Amino acid sequence: MTIFETRLSRIREWMAENGVDVTLVTSPPNVFYLTGFDCHPHERFMALCLQASGEATLFIPSLEKNEAEKSGFRSAIVTVSDTEDPMEKLRSVVGDGPFGALAIEKQHLTVARYEQLQTVFGEAKSVAAEELLLKMRLQKDAAEIAIMKKAAQIADRGVEAGINAIAAGKTEAEIVAVIESTMKSHGASGTSFSTIVLGGEKSALPHGSPGSRVIQAGDLVLLDLGAVYEGYCSDITRTVMVGEPTDQQREIYETVLAANLAGIAATRPGVPAMAIDAAARETITARGYGEYFTHRVGHGLGIEVHETPSMHGKNEQELVPGMVFTIEPGVYVPNVGGVRIEDDVLVTEDGVEVLTSYPKELQILAVK
Amino acid sequence: MTIFETRLSRIREWMAENGVDVTLVTSPPNVFYLTGFDCHPHERFMALCLQASGEATLFIPSLEKNEAEKSGFRSAIVTVSDTEDPMEKLRSVVGDGPFGALAIEKQHLTVARYEQLQTVFGEAKSVAAEELLLKMRLQKDAAEIAIMKKAAQIADRGVEAGINAIAAGKTEAEIVAVIESTMKSHGASGTSFSTIVLGGEKSALPHGSPGSRVIQAGDLVLLDLGAVYEGYCSDITRTVMVGEPTDQQREIYETVLAANLAGIAATRPGVPAMAIDAAARETITARGYGEYFTHRVGHGLGIEVHETPSMHGKNEQELVPGMVFTIEPGVYVPNVGGVRIEDDVLVTEDGVEVLTSYPKELQILAVK
Repeated sequence: MTIFETRLSRIREWMAENGVDVTLVTSPPNVFYLTGFDCHPHERFMALCLQASGEATLFIPSLEKNEAEKSGFRSAIVTVSDTEDPMEKLRSVVGDGPFGALAIEKQHLTVARYEQLQTVFGEAKSVAAEELLLKMRLQKDAAEIAIMKKAAQIADRGVEAGINAIAAGKTEAEIVAVIESTMKSHGASGTSFSTIVLGGEKSALPHGSPGSRVIQAGDLVLLDLGAVYEGYCSDITRTVMVGEPTDQQREIYETVLAANLAGIAATRPGVPAMAIDAAARETITARGYGEYFTHRVGHGLGIEVHETPSMHGKNEQELVPGMVFTIEPGVYVPNVGGVRIEDDVLVTEDGVEVLTSYPKELQILAVK
Repeated sequence: MTIFETRLSRIREWMAENGVDVTLVTSPPNVFYLTGFDCHPHERFMALCLQASGEATLFIPSLEKNEAEKSGFRSAIVTVSDTEDPMEKLRSVVGDGPFGALAIEKQHLTVARYEQLQTVFGEAKSVAAEELLLKMRLQKDAAEIAIMKKAAQIADRGVEAGINAIAAGKTEAEIVAVIESTMKSHGASGTSFSTIVLGGEKSALPHGSPGSRVIQAGDLVLLDLGAVYEGYCSDITRTVMVGEPTDQQREIYETVLAANLAGIAATRPGVPAMAIDAAARETITARGYGEYFTHRVGHGLGIEVHETPSMHGKNEQELVPGMVFTIEPGVYVPNVGGVRIEDDVLVTEDGVEVLTSYPKELQILAVK
């Protein structure tokens, strides 16, 4: 049984237990997770359709036919061209019903598509398929972990190249280009998100946009980046100093580093996700910077760069082995600068393994 | 009045005409179009809320506060932190109702979010806001056209750099890195989509993934790429030959080029969108390759890389000045190779202006 067949049978069991007639999986990450087919069809219709009878059918845009056939999916593939009605094709597979319960991804499916589906499934009760799918994806298996370690290593190389580019006197945008091409040349198929390099006052903007600003003495420079490798994301942030730091810059840096380490130290099976946020936040609050830590401590990571578990201060979900998430406390002082230090961590049987490994002690770069 | 205020007043008129109490704009492209705030909040809640009273309120994740304040938006901004309930914040702005009609983006809003909104808006009738928003975005104004011309020029530079990299004997992935860093260094904030460079048999896969394949003699090499510049996308495809083409490779190339030119020649105000698809398709069919042209001739382009108008063979929508779309016929012969030639075009008062300008005659690169 392939890994994909194993995953599909788990869904079939869930359908039987919950009296679900048809499950439609429509989000690209979940279609990839269940079939190995990595496709972003934009506004076109793509769905993995599982029927109570056991049948699995993958609906894809016509132009993706060759790629789909090369994927890990071994059941029926139905193509839909740009001039065909996907609902007619769907009806020809599932029949006229009646349908009691339809499982859909409520967090992905749009209201417009759902209204279309109602023309096929009538008044079938809608059931959220997310709970199961997210639960399955929450615990990474050995193959996934091996891929994610490699994705993290590629991100380490990206950080290294970016920091070398800062030292060489480049602009934010030029540093981004160096980081992204370095990751590509180490095997990344893409970036987990648009690479962020922000210097000086801009480093206090958690998600600002890199521009033509030249890095200069006195700048804290924040680099936040990630690689996609074999469909899985990494995500790392490092912050470096250009020229001698002021006392405050050094204090902010040491505060955030202590928070990052406190978050990692708190990570192990059985503790609630919110304990990681609390460990980092208490460290920052104790040093007087609590009001400048304006976001949750981290987020789950996998096929998507943001997935469950959400590592916020109210999430009581218990950590279990196989979870992968970021720990990324930050302190952003307007008009002074910001520091964020982010690692990707794996919950192991008895603790934690940090997947990203670029050094974290304060690096002071010479002025060009 | 700023361009954003002008756009908002057009929505307010529409709300009055259609008896809409509240409009919630939630898709990042439409929020950007209406506020100048370019933000992708992932799973966090972001919405521009327009009330019949005229009030406009932008709900954003807390960590985006500084960026939002720097945007073009001049009305109320409400932040939602990761531990706050966005629906409570929304209720505090819109009140307890009752609400007769709520306009939402049905093609963007998820079923899960809609179920949450029902806790605030009760049984309010849902109205699709897309029709108006898409209609507004369909005709680019002078400022948008100036930006899109620049985005197209950056893509031209990307193609040029990519073709030079082919000549230098690089792999597909290395060529991608060169293209993307070239576009960044010419001002792109990102790419419209993951850059595609496919050689040989892989060029017959319309959306295959670039890998470690080294380009070699006898390959058709397809480059499909785009730049994002000031929030707007470009999209260009060129195909080049490495080494001497076979007669069939040359015939495919000339067929696709003729189809691209036929599509451009057919473009002017007043003709239906489907006429452009037909002009290109007839050219290809007449030369015997109709079955290998497996997708629509193009798609609208703007803030999104795929937007209206869809340039497929059944779209009767009339072309009007200010529309921008791609014309990208392709012929993909399995095990032989594929050719696609794509330009971005603007419908003008009396015809068409082609925004992408990299040459289209068959380029034959020397073998390394």
